[in-house]
Amino acid sequence: MRDPRVVRCTYYLESEIDPEQAAAAMAGEQSSGTFVAVPGESPRLRERHAAQVISVQELGLRSPSLPSRTPAKDVRAALAVVEFPMENIGTDLATLQTTVAGNLFELGELFACRLQDIELPKEFLAAHHGPAFGIPGTRTLLGNADGVMIGTIIKPNVGLAEDEFRLVVRELARSSIDLIKDDELMTDPAYLPLERRVAIATEEIREAEQHTGHPVMYAFNITGDLAGLQQRHDLVVQAGGRCVMLNVPIMGLPALAWLREFSAVPIHGHRAGLAGSMRAPGLGMSYRVWQQLARLAGADHLHVSGLGSKFYESDTEVAANVRSLLEPLGDFPSPVPTLSSGQNVTTPGPTYAAVGTTDLLMLAGGAVAAHPDGPAAGVRSLRAAWAAAVDGVPLEAAAHTAAQAGDPALLHAGRTFGGLA
Amino acid sequence: MRDPRVVRCTYYLESEIDPEQAAAAMAGEQSSGTFVAVPGESPRLRERHAAQVISVQELGLRSPSLPSRTPAKDVRAALAVVEFPMENIGTDLATLQTTVAGNLFELGELFACRLQDIELPKEFLAAHHGPAFGIPGTRTLLGNADGVMIGTIIKPNVGLAEDEFRLVVRELARSSIDLIKDDELMTDPAYLPLERRVAIATEEIREAEQHTGHPVMYAFNITGDLAGLQQRHDLVVQAGGRCVMLNVPIMGLPALAWLREFSAVPIHGHRAGLAGSMRAPGLGMSYRVWQQLARLAGADHLHVSGLGSKFYESDTEVAANVRSLLEPLGDFPSPVPTLSSGQNVTTPGPTYAAVGTTDLLMLAGGAVAAHPDGPAAGVRSLRAAWAAAVDGVPLEAAAHTAAQAGDPALLHAGRTFGGLA
Repeated sequence: MRDPRVVRCTYYLESEIDPEQAAAAMAGEQSSGTFVAVPGESPRLRERHAAQVISVQELGLRSPSLPSRTPAKDVRAALAVVEFPMENIGTDLATLQTTVAGNLFELGELFACRLQDIELPKEFLAAHHGPAFGIPGTRTLLGNADGVMIGTIIKPNVGLAEDEFRLVVRELARSSIDLIKDDELMTDPAYLPLERRVAIATEEIREAEQHTGHPVMYAFNITGDLAGLQQRHDLVVQAGGRCVMLNVPIMGLPALAWLREFSAVPIHGHRAGLAGSMRAPGLGMSYRVWQQLARLAGADHLHVSGLGSKFYESDTEVAANVRSLLEPLGDFPSPVPTLSSGQNVTTPGPTYAAVGTTDLLMLAGGAVAAHPDGPAAGVRSLRAAWAAAVDGVPLEAAAHTAAQAGDPALLHAGRTFGGLA
Repeated sequence: MRDPRVVRCTYYLESEIDPEQAAAAMAGEQSSGTFVAVPGESPRLRERHAAQVISVQELGLRSPSLPSRTPAKDVRAALAVVEFPMENIGTDLATLQTTVAGNLFELGELFACRLQDIELPKEFLAAHHGPAFGIPGTRTLLGNADGVMIGTIIKPNVGLAEDEFRLVVRELARSSIDLIKDDELMTDPAYLPLERRVAIATEEIREAEQHTGHPVMYAFNITGDLAGLQQRHDLVVQAGGRCVMLNVPIMGLPALAWLREFSAVPIHGHRAGLAGSMRAPGLGMSYRVWQQLARLAGADHLHVSGLGSKFYESDTEVAANVRSLLEPLGDFPSPVPTLSSGQNVTTPGPTYAAVGTTDLLMLAGGAVAAHPDGPAAGVRSLRAAWAAAVDGVPLEAAAHTAAQAGDPALLHAGRTFGGLA
């Protein structure tokens, strides 16, 4: 008797053979099949455990996206919907990933194989924790922060000595910013150990909060060996830290899910390395799929690249990334879509026009640290740019109005980072 | 004062701008740079922490390998050698990966970015455990097994009920095979839990060994949640199991390194999912790089695809994979190059001709389970095919000689799986 619960996947495939056959071969490889019929592959077993090709939509002839052991000239492109019995997978995330995005990328008869979309049964979602904080929990920890949250990255991202680090954090903490984060490259180096960074940053933030009354969250990068993961988390929490960060694609989704089990603070999910299995259009998985897995595993904040960024995804794709994070998934709170790379006062306008939400964390490096009037002015300029974007006021008008009212931060930012002459 | 110890990486890059500039921008992004000059990026810091472009070799104009936010027509391809100060990275594997294969794949101005080769300083290698068993330790556990080790995968890979599983293992264990492994899709499903699989398989193997006197190693797939990883490992070891298997790309290299810290048995490293970040020629990292990281992390066996396989890599590439695993790395024993997919009596000849070694584990599914005379004949046929390959005897001659001497296993295999009329 076949369990009606299935994991439904949409793949983009290319093959020289009939796409129906190619999809069936892939579905077999990823469930009960093998290359040669073997004893034991009984009708009972097939009926209950074989993945099934639900539909194949041909997209026409193309040049092959990927190399294979036998070169092809033209290949047939198709979208194939395949259903995997949930019974094969259970509720384990690594098993899910092995099934829907494992050996299938190896198959020589496929000249493209990309997991475009996934639909998980309720029972699968219900077996996972999801984000413990997400948007609402993060806002609460930030003193019920309203609107777009503004964050920044410690720069230079490597090499700061302890005393230099202290001065950088001090100035940022006093800028009434919402979040400061380690760079993804900054983990636990001998010249500035995590333990010292945590001690210094929490001390400076406490001190700054006495003056500003504005809570600041620091996302400490606890990426590193798994044997020490819990210890590094505990170090942050015991010092009063309010957020930990993980380079999710490098640590793996199982590491994120494990951290979620004991983390007392939000998990800032960095995507370093993700493009290595996402950027080639005919290979790997889409952001739409990956973010669902990362949400299941418990990420509270997830990087989406940024509109106007220096990264490869177009603004349209980045906006789709943001929207995908805000789509419901089970009963979990949504994670905070985290914009990064090349963010400054010119990007809120197009971003708000594209996504129509302020449930965002915008990370700006240079636009905060290198603002001509200092980081506090940098943060003010970004908040003002967001207010203008939401109100539909052009940046230039908002900048001049604010300057006339005594705050030239936006005007100076616009002149420094672009957007204003 | 700059530390002379560096991690040296070779990248294949494509860019519209001068490749020298593109490489420098990438090196900056992955070390002390940011998009905008920020206060604190002092000459001291740059001198000590900036990654340095050592050489750039232009390869001419090409069509872009990857999409970006601004389309390009022709791009300039180049090989760039970049050195990262070891001080930035320390000795942590996740930090290494973030540095040499992290955000750089996102960069919009690159239209290809692939890590082709890596050279790690001795001090980095010395900080890692490497394989605890590798080739010598595996051979010892298999009763000083000589020559190519023969293994197989439980098929059908999903769906077997307990009693069906018992019969499959029984027959394979009695076949005098060296290794039986779970499929990568088989983890800990409710219909055949790992605990039951371990109990049944170890019992059947003990029983078979009484008859055959031939030790059999079973690689139990302990891929799954990290919270339960040690428990699953202990379950295998306490039952007398001699090997655990991990889907390395999905679990992540940090999970492999963590398992290595407590594993009492060899770790069989499966590469499910690896092609997702390896198959696009202009993206991700090469097998040559990946295998070094997986060896550092402690894999005792590593999958290399197979010559004549159904997977995408050409025989030349597979042979290069094998050779890369047998190149020295620090003072570690080499892991066992593990051939899989489409392996049968026809593949030893070309494999031996290409790699010239018998330090191999050949996994054959159908060629063992579906041999017309049963699995024991399947194993005998593969051993005979390897003996013929090493002795330079054509398969047909070897098959007829063996048949005349009373063992038609190779002859029947050749007629069933190809190679003989």
